Amino acid sequence: MIDLTSPDPTSPVLAIDIGGTKLAAALVEPGGRVAVYDRVDTPQAPGLDADGLWRTLESLLDKLVADAGSPRLAGVGVGCGGPMTWPAAEVSPLNIPAWQGFPLRERLRARYAGLPVRIHNDAICVAVGEHWRGAGRGRGNVLGMVVSTGVGGGLILDGRLVDGASGNAGHIGHVVVDPDGPPCKCGGRGCLEAVARGPGLVAWAQEQGWRPGRRDVTGVELAADARRGHPVAIAAMRRAGRAIGIAIASATHLCDLEVAAIGGGLSQAGALLFDPLEEAFRTHARMEFARQVQVVPAALGQTAGLIGAAALVFAADRYWSAD
Amino acid sequence: MIDLTSPDPTSPVLAIDIGGTKLAAALVEPGGRVAVYDRVDTPQAPGLDADGLWRTLESLLDKLVADAGSPRLAGVGVGCGGPMTWPAAEVSPLNIPAWQGFPLRERLRARYAGLPVRIHNDAICVAVGEHWRGAGRGRGNVLGMVVSTGVGGGLILDGRLVDGASGNAGHIGHVVVDPDGPPCKCGGRGCLEAVARGPGLVAWAQEQGWRPGRRDVTGVELAADARRGHPVAIAAMRRAGRAIGIAIASATHLCDLEVAAIGGGLSQAGALLFDPLEEAFRTHARMEFARQVQVVPAALGQTAGLIGAAALVFAADRYWSAD
Repeated sequence: MIDLTSPDPTSPVLAIDIGGTKLAAALVEPGGRVAVYDRVDTPQAPGLDADGLWRTLESLLDKLVADAGSPRLAGVGVGCGGPMTWPAAEVSPLNIPAWQGFPLRERLRARYAGLPVRIHNDAICVAVGEHWRGAGRGRGNVLGMVVSTGVGGGLILDGRLVDGASGNAGHIGHVVVDPDGPPCKCGGRGCLEAVARGPGLVAWAQEQGWRPGRRDVTGVELAADARRGHPVAIAAMRRAGRAIGIAIASATHLCDLEVAAIGGGLSQAGALLFDPLEEAFRTHARMEFARQVQVVPAALGQTAGLIGAAALVFAADRYWSAD
Repeated sequence: MIDLTSPDPTSPVLAIDIGGTKLAAALVEPGGRVAVYDRVDTPQAPGLDADGLWRTLESLLDKLVADAGSPRLAGVGVGCGGPMTWPAAEVSPLNIPAWQGFPLRERLRARYAGLPVRIHNDAICVAVGEHWRGAGRGRGNVLGMVVSTGVGGGLILDGRLVDGASGNAGHIGHVVVDPDGPPCKCGGRGCLEAVARGPGLVAWAQEQGWRPGRRDVTGVELAADARRGHPVAIAAMRRAGRAIGIAIASATHLCDLEVAAIGGGLSQAGALLFDPLEEAFRTHARMEFARQVQVVPAALGQTAGLIGAAALVFAADRYWSAD
């Protein structure tokens, strides 16, 4: 007899990654493999309303599931840009003005009735993905970081995702690395994100005389110019690396980590970022237990967040503490 | 029929607090009340060997238990100065040269055969005590701190004590508050402890012209002079408060706390410490979720560590993850 209430053990999770640049979706298998994947640019038309964006997402999801032969699903897992209420997931992504307090979990629950629908911050999903199937696999205490337009992260301690009081644990971007440093968008000063976020680094490099070939450059172009040997771009990577290393040293002492895994566009600078990062980390992480920590590049690339979103369903014992 | 294998539900825990200044012990009731208490100065004779110190501890414990009428015990809980291996608790307290790699848990297990014997860092026990029965009671996400000769702490997240990879989570004293700041005993630079530990503050104040009446002064005398209005002592409290506030802001962003509870000798400075602390915290903790955090004095005083040590036995579901 078939038990219709529990999904086939081979059922995939519908995983969704919602950011200011793209909406991505995938069917992720129980082992963590991305079976099918699709994405669209996030619509950013000035007049776009919340429901217009929702319909774009619905079309993406319907096409993905139909193309895969409409399999039975194990659940829906979502990583979405913050902030959001959690776990209710009324989302207000910083880079998606059309959604302010948008009831994403409620909408998805209505659409996928009877299935678990679990939503977390996108950087937390990346950290979960890296812990479940990436650079932190098999370790109990892992910080996963994304260094990109912003600096985010997630924290797995004693084998479990830490949510904190409001689902916001993991905000490594707002660890203070220089108390008298540059102002941060959060209203504070000298946060890691204020120093190391892509746009902040680009602005700093331009002040120092870096002249990129075009407008709208990001940290990715800056990292590329560093690889080509541009001295200001190299100095910018050193500046970012040092700040990241200090923040990871603080996090390590506070949380007794085993692995810090770093992803996001800036990590493409490779050794130009990781060498000064490692140097700053080793300078400040001097307690014996802290010297054991490995600082490594993230392993999963662009699909880390989708794989982590799937893990909210597949490995709820470790990654999902809410209802 | 009496089940001899499980203790009477009213049985107390034998709680022990081992530091460089004193050895303290108590019988703590299941509700957290300290029923009987005793202490001796920690012997520091230059020729003292490990077994000599152990015998001093044994005498303290035997007298305490005998004076209380030798009740059946629920277990033995210990807070001990670090570092130590954990959970095996071969202890090497910084301020107890006679014990280097001393097998404290093994000795106590042999002496109290059949009873659970659980040992953790002394600052972690203070944090556990403050969470179980003190300033963090009823909250899920609490940082407990001790600001004294050193700066230590413990971290309760999602309702459970965080141990980390090696039982060292909670080392807030080595969160970096000033990357170019004073060298720290750990080998790093600009750690909270390097700035805010009592001896560091005393040295700083003396450089600034503070002339205490006697030698061997500590942060407690400095705090007392601050209360009397000495401007350098007040500036020292401000310096410590600012550093503590920055470290708590970083911890809050990383861990999404609800309460930070601060104990230890320096906290006796009251508003002279807590006002600049609060100001620095509010300057740097600007994310909306971080602004909810309450920074408060610890509630339990000198017995916090004993009460926390007892909680390792009485509330193992929250505070004891090891064997």
